[in-house]
Amino acid sequence: MDIAARVYNHKWKIDPIIRSLIDTDFYKLLMCQSVFRNKPDTRVTFSLINRSKHVPLARLIDEGELREQLDHIRSLSLSRGESTWLRGNTFYGKRQMFRPDFMEWFEGLRLPPYFLERKGDQYELTFEGAWPEVMLWEIPALAVLMELRGRAVLNAMGRFELKVLYARAMTRLWEKIERLRTVDNLSIADFGTRRRHSFLWQDWCVQAMIEGLGRKFTGTSNCLIAMRREVEAIGTNAHELPMVYSALAETDAELARAPYEVLSDWHDEHDGNLRIILPDTYGTKGFLENAPDWLTKWTGVRIDSGDPATGADIAIDWWRKRGEDPRTKRVIFSDGLDVDKIVELQAQFAGRVNVSFGWGTLLTNDFRGLAPDDALAPFSLVCKAISANGRPTVKLSDNPEKAMGPPDQIERYKRVFGVGDQQRIAVEV
Amino acid sequence: MDIAARVYNHKWKIDPIIRSLIDTDFYKLLMCQSVFRNKPDTRVTFSLINRSKHVPLARLIDEGELREQLDHIRSLSLSRGESTWLRGNTFYGKRQMFRPDFMEWFEGLRLPPYFLERKGDQYELTFEGAWPEVMLWEIPALAVLMELRGRAVLNAMGRFELKVLYARAMTRLWEKIERLRTVDNLSIADFGTRRRHSFLWQDWCVQAMIEGLGRKFTGTSNCLIAMRREVEAIGTNAHELPMVYSALAETDAELARAPYEVLSDWHDEHDGNLRIILPDTYGTKGFLENAPDWLTKWTGVRIDSGDPATGADIAIDWWRKRGEDPRTKRVIFSDGLDVDKIVELQAQFAGRVNVSFGWGTLLTNDFRGLAPDDALAPFSLVCKAISANGRPTVKLSDNPEKAMGPPDQIERYKRVFGVGDQQRIAVEV
Repeated sequence: MDIAARVYNHKWKIDPIIRSLIDTDFYKLLMCQSVFRNKPDTRVTFSLINRSKHVPLARLIDEGELREQLDHIRSLSLSRGESTWLRGNTFYGKRQMFRPDFMEWFEGLRLPPYFLERKGDQYELTFEGAWPEVMLWEIPALAVLMELRGRAVLNAMGRFELKVLYARAMTRLWEKIERLRTVDNLSIADFGTRRRHSFLWQDWCVQAMIEGLGRKFTGTSNCLIAMRREVEAIGTNAHELPMVYSALAETDAELARAPYEVLSDWHDEHDGNLRIILPDTYGTKGFLENAPDWLTKWTGVRIDSGDPATGADIAIDWWRKRGEDPRTKRVIFSDGLDVDKIVELQAQFAGRVNVSFGWGTLLTNDFRGLAPDDALAPFSLVCKAISANGRPTVKLSDNPEKAMGPPDQIERYKRVFGVGDQQRIAVEV
Repeated sequence: MDIAARVYNHKWKIDPIIRSLIDTDFYKLLMCQSVFRNKPDTRVTFSLINRSKHVPLARLIDEGELREQLDHIRSLSLSRGESTWLRGNTFYGKRQMFRPDFMEWFEGLRLPPYFLERKGDQYELTFEGAWPEVMLWEIPALAVLMELRGRAVLNAMGRFELKVLYARAMTRLWEKIERLRTVDNLSIADFGTRRRHSFLWQDWCVQAMIEGLGRKFTGTSNCLIAMRREVEAIGTNAHELPMVYSALAETDAELARAPYEVLSDWHDEHDGNLRIILPDTYGTKGFLENAPDWLTKWTGVRIDSGDPATGADIAIDWWRKRGEDPRTKRVIFSDGLDVDKIVELQAQFAGRVNVSFGWGTLLTNDFRGLAPDDALAPFSLVCKAISANGRPTVKLSDNPEKAMGPPDQIERYKRVFGVGDQQRIAVEV
């Protein structure tokens, strides 16, 4: 019994879920720097959206505990070591990815206030303010809600139930890793920060991937774990960029151009493996058909909604039509992956294109079937920009189940981006 | 990292200080059984008394945390294993020390309510009700206050400060044990439950004594630790018995007889090493001079106040005068001991009488000089019966610093028991 260690551990009034501002996705920091440079004064509102209405978050999670965790996040600032790592580390082969002016701002940052209210069995949780600040709430807010919901379930479990629970989860994860180990030329990263079971569990998953997959494991989206475990920080950009740029458009013509403007700004800042197109915000097909030629030179495409094979085929066809060799290009699958799908997609596309996987929730939160009433199963929780400078944002995606925005604006966007009927696919995680 | 164990440890809303009704002194249970048989309906009030006024308990300890800890104690009941151990274990060589009717009552017991109020920088903490119930609050109440005060200090310390703190405390304890190891025929027990630094620390001290002293370590007063570490549970009786019996006396003549009545009741119930006289409640000298002859047959005397060598000499002289051979008798020293005093008393009395030591606060709470402002130094906190059936209790002891009761009653008791001038000795722990 190490009495000193035990006393230290029990000193905390709360067990903080987020203990670092870089316990977040790497792409958030990349996008934050881009927004800090290009749209620093845009006012945005981010809001929590629980797509899984059957999970009564406000019944499961105590409001006081939630506030304590969110307040703790607001007390965090970048530590000296974190700052040194961000300033000095090589990301995607490049040093000084983060510019001094951005780092100086980031070092002084505290996250802005949150607005929390219980509405029936759900929480309304919103964040308002300058885009570069507000956007950094998304990942920690989601991780806090997922972990507090998990803790509520774990609280009812005994000492041996917990041992068995984690033994089963570890066994399951290791069996997945053993299957993946047999896949030739696999290239897979952890994308599971936001909906992880817990920080410690994600950290454990990353260590298991390092040991089990060796070079097939390319890194983690989580900056803090990348720093601690000395692996690559992985990620490029996300839907919030085209969503906010589009909301700011004054006319339909500006709206049609907005998603390309995002990538034009990105093009100025990044090259190589950071030039990854996320084409599905307003429909992959139309986006690629109408894309300017310089976009065909980009390194790859990330498929984040709709049927992944269809999306990859559309990208491959597009490269071929525009005179590019798909075998020099990369397709990153990142939507709702688990081992079967990964093995299947690798078999289907290896050789035709470079394939990568961003494995999220079912890597870091596959507790399905491990608790009574499946109370630890992951569910679909997101935190999105819902407005920018007072205008609502819209997302169509390649799956109408993931669409968001006011109905009239959804119709307008469908018209502007020429999106017709879409295949509806159930969203689980 | 054992995630399951960590999750389990963090599930507790509080870190309970007292987790068992037998985390108490063995003599409390012996006395409780005696009271349960002889005076079950006596109404008593116990009260916390901080003799060290310079320790501002109410400034150091949060009232809410104190209430949580006290409420937790009220939620405890005897576990099946604890009951089995009390019913089946051999204490002082005797099986079934605890009678079935007492055990049945004890198994159904929950501790009665407490009354807590802040008064300036101190807490007023009292317990009222039937004697057998209320008396069981004394030890856990003291242990909670001592440990909460310690936690308040530990909370301000960093991870390495804590490591060093405990490293120093362990080193100090081990050096004491190494000195004691060289003392021939030593017989020493842990009496440090009530004013221990913490439960874990007391448990560690007992383990260190087991390893370091072997058979020279005779056991612990703490029932829970005795059960867990499989050592003897040690203890006989305390001042509360004569104090309450005396308060119940209707006349001066009854008062003069009361302390002997206590031992007469005890005599009926116990023999051998449990027949230990605690003579100092109203002055050792007068008590022994006026004692009935059957008391000279008892096994020994416990010296708990005044100058210990003087007290032991008085007992030895008394035995000689009454025709007893002191070398067949036992003297137990239990007041404010530390190693120097133990070594000195052993050298002085070994061979003349059987010597034992009940080592308390400076065994289980010697953190003197280990924290800034000596904020972890032990101090003199007691919890005493202050009234019985509405009449105030009185204690004179062999040191006026330890006297308690209303001044007029103290004068009366001094007259009845023939107590004159006493030597005043500073009370530290």
